[in-house]
Amino acid sequence: MQVNDVVAYIQADRDRFVADLKEWLAIPSVSGDPAHDGDVRRSAEWLAGHLRKEGFPTVEVWETPGHPAVYAEWPAEDPDAPAVVVYGHHDVQPVEPLAEWDTEPFKPVEKGDRIIGRGASDDKGQVFFHTLGLRALLAASGRQAPPVTVKLLVEGEEESGSVHFADLLRARRDRLSCDAVVISDTTMWAADVPSMCTGMRGLTEAELTLRGPEGDLHSGSFGGAVPNTLQAMATMLAALHDAGGRVTLPGFYDDVVPLSDEERELFARLPFDEDEWLRTAGSSRAAHGEKGYTTLERIWARPTAEINGMWGGHTGPGGKTIVPREAHAKISFRLAAGQDPRTVQEQFRAWVAGHTPAGVEAEVHIPGGGVRPCFSPIGSPAVKAARRAMERAFGTEVLFTREGGSGPEADIADILDAPLIFVAVGLDGDRIHAPNEKVEIPLLLKGAEAAAYLWEELATALR
Amino acid sequence: MQVNDVVAYIQADRDRFVADLKEWLAIPSVSGDPAHDGDVRRSAEWLAGHLRKEGFPTVEVWETPGHPAVYAEWPAEDPDAPAVVVYGHHDVQPVEPLAEWDTEPFKPVEKGDRIIGRGASDDKGQVFFHTLGLRALLAASGRQAPPVTVKLLVEGEEESGSVHFADLLRARRDRLSCDAVVISDTTMWAADVPSMCTGMRGLTEAELTLRGPEGDLHSGSFGGAVPNTLQAMATMLAALHDAGGRVTLPGFYDDVVPLSDEERELFARLPFDEDEWLRTAGSSRAAHGEKGYTTLERIWARPTAEINGMWGGHTGPGGKTIVPREAHAKISFRLAAGQDPRTVQEQFRAWVAGHTPAGVEAEVHIPGGGVRPCFSPIGSPAVKAARRAMERAFGTEVLFTREGGSGPEADIADILDAPLIFVAVGLDGDRIHAPNEKVEIPLLLKGAEAAAYLWEELATALR
Repeated sequence: MQVNDVVAYIQADRDRFVADLKEWLAIPSVSGDPAHDGDVRRSAEWLAGHLRKEGFPTVEVWETPGHPAVYAEWPAEDPDAPAVVVYGHHDVQPVEPLAEWDTEPFKPVEKGDRIIGRGASDDKGQVFFHTLGLRALLAASGRQAPPVTVKLLVEGEEESGSVHFADLLRARRDRLSCDAVVISDTTMWAADVPSMCTGMRGLTEAELTLRGPEGDLHSGSFGGAVPNTLQAMATMLAALHDAGGRVTLPGFYDDVVPLSDEERELFARLPFDEDEWLRTAGSSRAAHGEKGYTTLERIWARPTAEINGMWGGHTGPGGKTIVPREAHAKISFRLAAGQDPRTVQEQFRAWVAGHTPAGVEAEVHIPGGGVRPCFSPIGSPAVKAARRAMERAFGTEVLFTREGGSGPEADIADILDAPLIFVAVGLDGDRIHAPNEKVEIPLLLKGAEAAAYLWEELATALR
Repeated sequence: MQVNDVVAYIQADRDRFVADLKEWLAIPSVSGDPAHDGDVRRSAEWLAGHLRKEGFPTVEVWETPGHPAVYAEWPAEDPDAPAVVVYGHHDVQPVEPLAEWDTEPFKPVEKGDRIIGRGASDDKGQVFFHTLGLRALLAASGRQAPPVTVKLLVEGEEESGSVHFADLLRARRDRLSCDAVVISDTTMWAADVPSMCTGMRGLTEAELTLRGPEGDLHSGSFGGAVPNTLQAMATMLAALHDAGGRVTLPGFYDDVVPLSDEERELFARLPFDEDEWLRTAGSSRAAHGEKGYTTLERIWARPTAEINGMWGGHTGPGGKTIVPREAHAKISFRLAAGQDPRTVQEQFRAWVAGHTPAGVEAEVHIPGGGVRPCFSPIGSPAVKAARRAMERAFGTEVLFTREGGSGPEADIADILDAPLIFVAVGLDGDRIHAPNEKVEIPLLLKGAEAAAYLWEELATALR
C-alpha cells in the first residue's frame, strides 16, 4: 500500500463523505431532552444502515434502558490478529441558546473548509472519519478485511452522563474483548500542532459539615468562649494545602504516577500562551498552584483539592452577631494517573477525623464512588503505534496532551482491561457544547488517513 | 439617718410601690411596633405624672424624632453638690410568641414575691426603685432634697436601638451635666450573690469579599492552576487567630485595659458553674478560647474576632465541580475596655491588605462606626461608693461582673463625660425579652434601699 493511494482515495471520496455526514448531522439526537428520544433512536438506526453500506459484516443496534448504542464489527482475516474497540458517541448536546446560532443547528452547512452544525465535531464527525479511513485502507491495500479486528462502539448517552454505559460494557464484555481501545472524542492542540491525549484526571467529591452549639449563639454573651464552627472550617480547610500548594492528606500523592522527563519535555514544546490562557480563565493575574509544576502539568497531570462551595451562619443582608451552629463545605479532588477515588475518600475521612478541633463535630458525606483517572504511558506500544499513524498522516511530529476532566474513559479501560489510545482531530475552537459548533473538513480527512494507518501500526505493535 | 428608718419606710410603702408599678406595666409601650406609638407616649406621660406626684420639682417630657423620653430633676440643697444622671428606659420588648405566656403580658400579676408582666425587670421595675429609694432617703433623713442633684433620664427607644438617643444627649448636654451616671438596666449575678457590672464590650463589624476569575470556572479545565477564592478565604480567616486563640491583627491588643489581679480574683469568687453554662450554650463540650483566661474573663473582658457568616460557590444540593469566582464572609469583633472601633477597623483593613493572596482581590465593607466598649475601674471613687451602698443594702460583699455585649452606655459616658456606675437588681432568670418576664419584689426593694444610700455615698465620694 502506498501512502499516496490512501490519500488519493480519501480525496476522491471527500464529497460523498461530507454529504453522508451532513445527512447524519441533520438528525437532532439530543440525548438529554426526552422530546428527542425518537431522534436519538433514528440516529442510531441511520448509523447502523450507513455502516452496513460501508461494508461492516456485523452491525447491531444495542438496546439499553436509555438510548441505544450501535455496534459494528469487521473481523481481521487472521483469526489471531489483535482486536481494537473504537469508542465514540452519536448523541449530541442541546442547542440552547438558539438565538446565538448563525445557522440552524440541525441544518448542517458547508462553508469553506468547515461543516457547521450540532455534533459536527462532538462527536459524529470524529466517529465518521473511521469508516472513511477503513475503506481507504482496504481500497489502497487491496485487502478484503483490516489487519486487526475493528469493533466500533458508538454510544447514545455520552452527553447525558453515560448512565447505562458501564452496565452495557459489562454485559457485552465478551463481544468487546480487545487488545486496545481507540477513543475518538477529544481534541488536538491546534490544526498545525497535532497531538494525542494520553490521560484524563479522575474526580471524587465530599461534603463536610461541622456542628457546634445546638443553635446560633449571641456573640456578646458567648463569643470568645465557645468554638466558632466557621472559624473551625476555615482553619481546617486552610490546612488542606501546604505553603507549596500541595494537598496535605497523608498518602495523597503516594499512588500518583510521576510525569516522566520525556513527557514534561514534550508538554513544554507545546506552544502554550499562558497570558492568553489566563484571559480565557477571566483572570488577568498570575498563574497559581503546586510548586515545581507548569500550568499545563498542573491541570493535566497533578491532583488537586478544590473548595467548590462553603456556607454557614448569617449570609443575608446586614449584620447578625452570632456564633454559628453549623458550617458546610463542598470539596472535590481531581485525581491524577494512578490515584483511586476510594483511597482518596478514605484519606479525606481520616484527615477530617484528625483535624477536627475540640468542641466541634464533623460529618463527611461522600456522594458516590467517584471517577477514576485514566492514563496511557507515552512509551507504551499502543500509544507509540498510534503516534506513528498520526505522524504519517500529518507529516510532522505529534506531541502529547492530557485532559483535566473526565468522562467514561476509565470505565472502558477497566471493564475491557485494555489500554486507551486517544486518536482525535477536534479543536478547542470547535465550540463543542456551544452555539455554532463546527468541524474542519481537512482535519477530518487527516483523521481518516491516520485511522487508515492505525490498523496496520496496531497489528504490528499489539501482536 | 438610721438604716432601720430607710428599711422601715420601704417596707411600709411596699404595697403602694407595687400597685403603682403594676399600673405603669399595664401600658404596652412596645417601641419597636408602630401600632404602639401612642402607648409609648402614654407610658412617658404616666411616668411624668408619677414623678411629679413623687415630688420631683422638675419633670419634662423630652421629644425626639421618635419616641419621647422623660426627664426629672431634684436639685441638691447645696448648689456645689455633685450631680448624678440616672439612666433607664420606659419602652419594652415585643411580647411574641404570645401563646407562651402564662398570663397576659400587659395585665401584670403579683404572684408570691414576684410581679409577672412585660417590662417588670427590663426596665420599668428598675427605674421605679429609684423613686422609692429617694423618698425613703428624704423621709428617713428628714431632708427636703437629696445630697446630690439627681437627674433621672428615662428614654423611650432602648428596645428599638436607641436611634435618637445620642442626638438627644448632645442636644441636652448642658441640662445633663453631671459627675457620674448610674445605669439601672442590667443584672446581678444571683439573688444571693449581689454584684455590679463594671463594663460592656464594644463591637465593630466588617464584610470581606474576595474576587478571583470573572466567572465560576470548570475545575477539570482550570482546577489547580488558578486561585480558588474559597480556599483563599479559608486561609485568610484561619490566620485571624493564632494557636493560642489570640486575634492576630497587629496592634489589636495594644489599647486593651488589662484585667487587674484584684478584678480577676473577684471574678473567680463568683459561683460560676461552667458545665451549666455550657449546657446553656447548647454545647456539652469543653470551653474554648484565648489561652490564659477563664470563661468569664473571655466573654466579659477580652476582645474577640468571630466569623458570623461565610458563603461562596455552589451551596445548593448535589455537586458542582467549580473553581468559585467569589467568596464572602461577615466578621465581627467584640471590643474590650480601651479599644476603639475605628482603630480596629483600620487594623482589619491593613491586615486584609497584607494577607490577600496573589491572584485574588479583596474588598472590605464596614457598615458603620461600631459600638465603643464602656468600662468603670473597680477602684474608681464612683464604683467604690456605689459598691458601699449596695453592700449596706444587701448586708454582704458585692462582687463584680461585666457584660459581653453592649447598648448605648458608651455613648452616655462619652457625651456626658462622666464615669458609669451600674446599680441594678435584675436577674439572668428574669426572662427579659422572653415570655413570662418577671421581677423579684424583694430585690426591687433592696434596689430602692441601695439607691437611698447611693446619694449619700456619692455626695462624699464625688465631692
